[in-house]
Amino acid sequence: MSSAIDILVSEVGPRDGLQSVKRAMPTADKKRWISALAAAGLQEIEVGSFVSPKALPQMADTAEIVQHAISIPGLRVAALVPNLKYARLALEAGAHLITIPVSVSEPHSISNIRMTHPQIIAEVKAIVALRNEAYPQVKIDTGLSTAFGCTIQGIVPEADTVRMAVTMAEAGVDAVNLSDTVGYANPAQVKRLFTKVRAEIGDKTGGAHLHNTRGQGLANVVAALDVGVTTFDSSQGGIGGCPYAPGASGNIVTEDLVFLLESMGLNTGIDIEALIDARKILLEALPGEAIYGLVPDAGLPKGFVPARQLALT
Amino acid sequence: MSSAIDILVSEVGPRDGLQSVKRAMPTADKKRWISALAAAGLQEIEVGSFVSPKALPQMADTAEIVQHAISIPGLRVAALVPNLKYARLALEAGAHLITIPVSVSEPHSISNIRMTHPQIIAEVKAIVALRNEAYPQVKIDTGLSTAFGCTIQGIVPEADTVRMAVTMAEAGVDAVNLSDTVGYANPAQVKRLFTKVRAEIGDKTGGAHLHNTRGQGLANVVAALDVGVTTFDSSQGGIGGCPYAPGASGNIVTEDLVFLLESMGLNTGIDIEALIDARKILLEALPGEAIYGLVPDAGLPKGFVPARQLALT
Repeated sequence: MSSAIDILVSEVGPRDGLQSVKRAMPTADKKRWISALAAAGLQEIEVGSFVSPKALPQMADTAEIVQHAISIPGLRVAALVPNLKYARLALEAGAHLITIPVSVSEPHSISNIRMTHPQIIAEVKAIVALRNEAYPQVKIDTGLSTAFGCTIQGIVPEADTVRMAVTMAEAGVDAVNLSDTVGYANPAQVKRLFTKVRAEIGDKTGGAHLHNTRGQGLANVVAALDVGVTTFDSSQGGIGGCPYAPGASGNIVTEDLVFLLESMGLNTGIDIEALIDARKILLEALPGEAIYGLVPDAGLPKGFVPARQLALT
Repeated sequence: MSSAIDILVSEVGPRDGLQSVKRAMPTADKKRWISALAAAGLQEIEVGSFVSPKALPQMADTAEIVQHAISIPGLRVAALVPNLKYARLALEAGAHLITIPVSVSEPHSISNIRMTHPQIIAEVKAIVALRNEAYPQVKIDTGLSTAFGCTIQGIVPEADTVRMAVTMAEAGVDAVNLSDTVGYANPAQVKRLFTKVRAEIGDKTGGAHLHNTRGQGLANVVAALDVGVTTFDSSQGGIGGCPYAPGASGNIVTEDLVFLLESMGLNTGIDIEALIDARKILLEALPGEAIYGLVPDAGLPKGFVPARQLALT
């Protein structure tokens, strides 16, 4: 994270969002959108995933998107990969950060990526070995999916999440993020779990990937802030993250998150008006898709002062 | 608040909600809805307002609604009044609690109820005097509107809110609630302001009336919980509270609030499934109205345990 900001907002819309949308966003629009997000001050963007183009044709152009994104000065470019084979492509394309989803719930892991825990742990170790050998400057994050509960398994014991975080840290990843994949988390649990994970893996404790499926996304952000979390994933317009119903966004909405943080006096480095402007690209490029966010509709409060200006007064 | 619960959820839908909806809900439906909410475990309901029936014909039957509500065992029945004239009607009807909105922003007070600060303060004192003389068992709350900001005035200095809280406590009200009337509050401000008010008026510090206009409602609840707030207003389906746009509820949604609290292990005394069932009455009685809430759409998590059962394990 840049020392100039208090909180890193990591935009996952171009990956998590676009791979949940049935229609593929044209490559030129993806580039234009990523450029606009970076121009609004976003410092880290997960621009796509390297996965089977048969399974997710929306992500078939990810190598080209990474090429574009790494040409933007100051932007940290992340790409998601499910295994060693695709990690190789991400590394070759020049991603600065690769993220590997690992489900704490083994039934979810098997259902989602058809790998048992021993299999995915072996993949992570192989990816770390490749990075260490040939791409030492690249960072590797794991996102612990279903860290707060699972639609298949139900309750996920906190000890299981802590144990998997330790396993990942020992496997050599740089950061372990906790993901509320299905919108089950509550603020008390968020505080407990980040505290327990930090007690075990210290500075390798990463950010929070929270969903708003049950309207609890920003409430969980407040809890995570209280226990020292400084990186949050979100997506512009709340796209992606398994929405259930009208109004029920999956991912927390970047615009509403940035408003929360900035209004609390936490500098994100993001110009919220420029960020809201970037929605136009999304609306044009994905006609008919549900785009969420209440701050864009309601507008900024009269007299609103962003955090960086508050600090000057 | 009953000693058996941790947090009091005060339902304001039948007042705040229904007076924002253009069509009047039929009296029989109001009674059925209030009964269903009480049966779901809600212990306090603001059932209506005593106001000019010309201005708000939706509230013309409030005396009859109060009569019905006070017949429900264990339910604390609140009614809103703007001045002494209508307070008298509320007291005669048998309300257990009367709430008086007082704007911290004087321009808002003048615009909203056509009273300056000296005028509304005089009304509050007159209402307290009437209560003391003839209805000593009735409680009086003031809700400080625009406590966190105002669409007319913009920023509302925190000192102004604290000063008005002190004025109200000195005027003899039992509790001073803080209201985010226009959805401007942020969690840092919520913590600061409740802490400052409590430092001045102690146990007369009341609950939080928060809006979700910019998606920050439950985030602000988490902050308020952190500084000891134990009463929260909300409305079923998020009706009322000046919605701006589709998806932008004004009031926080009772269903999502109860889910937040119960999942944190805080007992509200409310059966969330019975609460969600009560939405049917709202949907039937207000066809075509926007009804919000993400928990009712997404469903309860697999393995969800309400707080009162958690306490038994």
